[in-house]
Amino acid sequence: MKFIIQREQLMNSVQDVMKAISSRTTIPILTGIKLEAQEDGIKLTGSDSDISIESFIPREADGIVYVEQIELGSIILQAKYFPDIVRKLPQSTVEIESEDNFKVTIRSGNAEFHLNGQDAEEYPQLPKLHTEDSFELPTDLLKNLIKQTVFAVSTVETRPILTGVNMKLTDGELDFVATDSHRLASRKIPLAKETNTLTFSSVVIPGKSLIELNKILEDNQESVEISVTENQILFRTKNLYFLSRLLDGNYPETSRLIPDQSKTIVYGTTKELLQSIDRASLLAKESRNSVVRFQTKPNNQVEISSNSPEIGKVVEEVTAKSIEGEDLKISFSAKYMMDALKAIEHDQVKIEFTGAMRPFIIRPIDNDQVLQLILPVRTY
Amino acid sequence: MKFIIQREQLMNSVQDVMKAISSRTTIPILTGIKLEAQEDGIKLTGSDSDISIESFIPREADGIVYVEQIELGSIILQAKYFPDIVRKLPQSTVEIESEDNFKVTIRSGNAEFHLNGQDAEEYPQLPKLHTEDSFELPTDLLKNLIKQTVFAVSTVETRPILTGVNMKLTDGELDFVATDSHRLASRKIPLAKETNTLTFSSVVIPGKSLIELNKILEDNQESVEISVTENQILFRTKNLYFLSRLLDGNYPETSRLIPDQSKTIVYGTTKELLQSIDRASLLAKESRNSVVRFQTKPNNQVEISSNSPEIGKVVEEVTAKSIEGEDLKISFSAKYMMDALKAIEHDQVKIEFTGAMRPFIIRPIDNDQVLQLILPVRTY
Repeated sequence: MKFIIQREQLMNSVQDVMKAISSRTTIPILTGIKLEAQEDGIKLTGSDSDISIESFIPREADGIVYVEQIELGSIILQAKYFPDIVRKLPQSTVEIESEDNFKVTIRSGNAEFHLNGQDAEEYPQLPKLHTEDSFELPTDLLKNLIKQTVFAVSTVETRPILTGVNMKLTDGELDFVATDSHRLASRKIPLAKETNTLTFSSVVIPGKSLIELNKILEDNQESVEISVTENQILFRTKNLYFLSRLLDGNYPETSRLIPDQSKTIVYGTTKELLQSIDRASLLAKESRNSVVRFQTKPNNQVEISSNSPEIGKVVEEVTAKSIEGEDLKISFSAKYMMDALKAIEHDQVKIEFTGAMRPFIIRPIDNDQVLQLILPVRTY
Repeated sequence: MKFIIQREQLMNSVQDVMKAISSRTTIPILTGIKLEAQEDGIKLTGSDSDISIESFIPREADGIVYVEQIELGSIILQAKYFPDIVRKLPQSTVEIESEDNFKVTIRSGNAEFHLNGQDAEEYPQLPKLHTEDSFELPTDLLKNLIKQTVFAVSTVETRPILTGVNMKLTDGELDFVATDSHRLASRKIPLAKETNTLTFSSVVIPGKSLIELNKILEDNQESVEISVTENQILFRTKNLYFLSRLLDGNYPETSRLIPDQSKTIVYGTTKELLQSIDRASLLAKESRNSVVRFQTKPNNQVEISSNSPEIGKVVEEVTAKSIEGEDLKISFSAKYMMDALKAIEHDQVKIEFTGAMRPFIIRPIDNDQVLQLILPVRTY
């Protein structure tokens, strides 16, 4: 195997596939990066067997030559050393060459590294996904779907299915839902007409996979193809192939959790509410989920407060845009509320309550695609 | 106590005094910040009893009003909560008021914090320094003296005196020296004439104190006054008072370590050498101090290489500006060499060797004020 490659492109691809590599894997060869010199370019692969990522650097794209002098072959290099070497090479091009005994030479300028590689034949074959069940999304929209939901997955393994995001597709509407049973985050989008025939409801993607995917995808409008089989999901862009296992089990039916009526509605400015709740949570550093109180007052005022007997208390009035319905006193986790308000991605927010003991809903003021639900805490 | 203060100035002062506060102190009241409202401004104090920092915010400076409505008094607030509260307050001004029962109210905009303070009478009195032994330096020069030496202090407590930087003043020349017995860093500067009468040699400042001091001092040419007593040192700027204990004991005489002749001199570009040694150290991640080999070659070439049998090897030729004297093969710690080259702060460097087993010296090419010395490692 041999090729000469642009260092920057190689670095980007290495960083992408590194997101799948874990130093704690039980399969030693998976601590390596697979390099494959193909006719039309270089393919890098990283995997921890839950997530597998392939990044492809084409020989040439848009008239720019990225790879030259390709001699076919493949090799495994240790992920512990290879990324730092690539990052610190002195020149903008890198020559990589492997011999029959798996010795690899990396040259750039006057620097020359000789590394002990491993036989690429020993690297597990990534499963090939055979499916017709695929649809496309702009990358930035997929990133939004992830960011607005994935923070709400459960981080404890008592109900493993809740550590994933439920992806549903029905009647041409795509819905991401995550819940840890104390709060729920959902984002819906309409899909293009041609995918109307596709339907699935039991797809649950590990939260960790979506977090890594979101890091790798660039915020642009290029298309991502999403393909689903019974136990795997594939996200594919032009040069990236991101494969994740799916979670086994039935995701709970969440739609019945969402109240269909409300007794108090507060309209307000997202940032003002967020900052005020942030301040109210400052005195509860010790407890993991600090609880704040939220109380409607006359003249469109909302009082946000919290009390930590030993340290002190904090109280603040925020002016709402308007308050409709009954007076309300409610307590909730500051962290959940801040997560929800950050995920709204809209200046103005509408909060719908159904009494102090019932879940409440946070939405952008004029948009039903994003829904955040929080269960209150009983303190009054 | 009461005052209204500019939030930004308060924040800066809080951050400064926080550098002295440790949550692991054995004296509970030292986990607090002392606030003192004086006639002419507000004084903040933090201390871990090794380092004490006072930061003063004047009522008014250069025609700008920083503090208003001062009512004299003082209080202790918990350092765990107060900085975050100040950082997150909604308005640019803050009102702080304490009552007789040590309850403190912090107001900014609509936000109101009520904190339980502590009696300032319980806070230890900072020692007052009585000395005539003081001299002045521009702040940026003091920062340079620290940065070019402090990294070389010992981090192990086997010889506690080596965890400090030795500050010497003789014949109007100020000298900072640090060594961990494997390497040595020294920076000298001439002082203004009027300090010629001042002499001391046994002052050893804890490395940790200098690191914190360097973080607090801004990179400007304003003057720092340095005063020394038997067991303490005070750095004072217009609004900052930084007091550190000194280390007990005799600092070793280091001048005899420095060779006064050389057999090989290599002149080169600091950045090229630094980057090449950085690359050569990449394969030795496991060992804390990776060793690189340095060998002179014909035509002003220097070969820098390293070998980690299991992982691989790296070799690189760097073109020196010139090489004088005998051929040389030597091995040394990559980390020590990189620290030294970074501290040189000059594009061109001169490295003087006296054989493979003797300490060698790194200096800027045309400047004797900075001297870095490294003991080689025996591998050949």
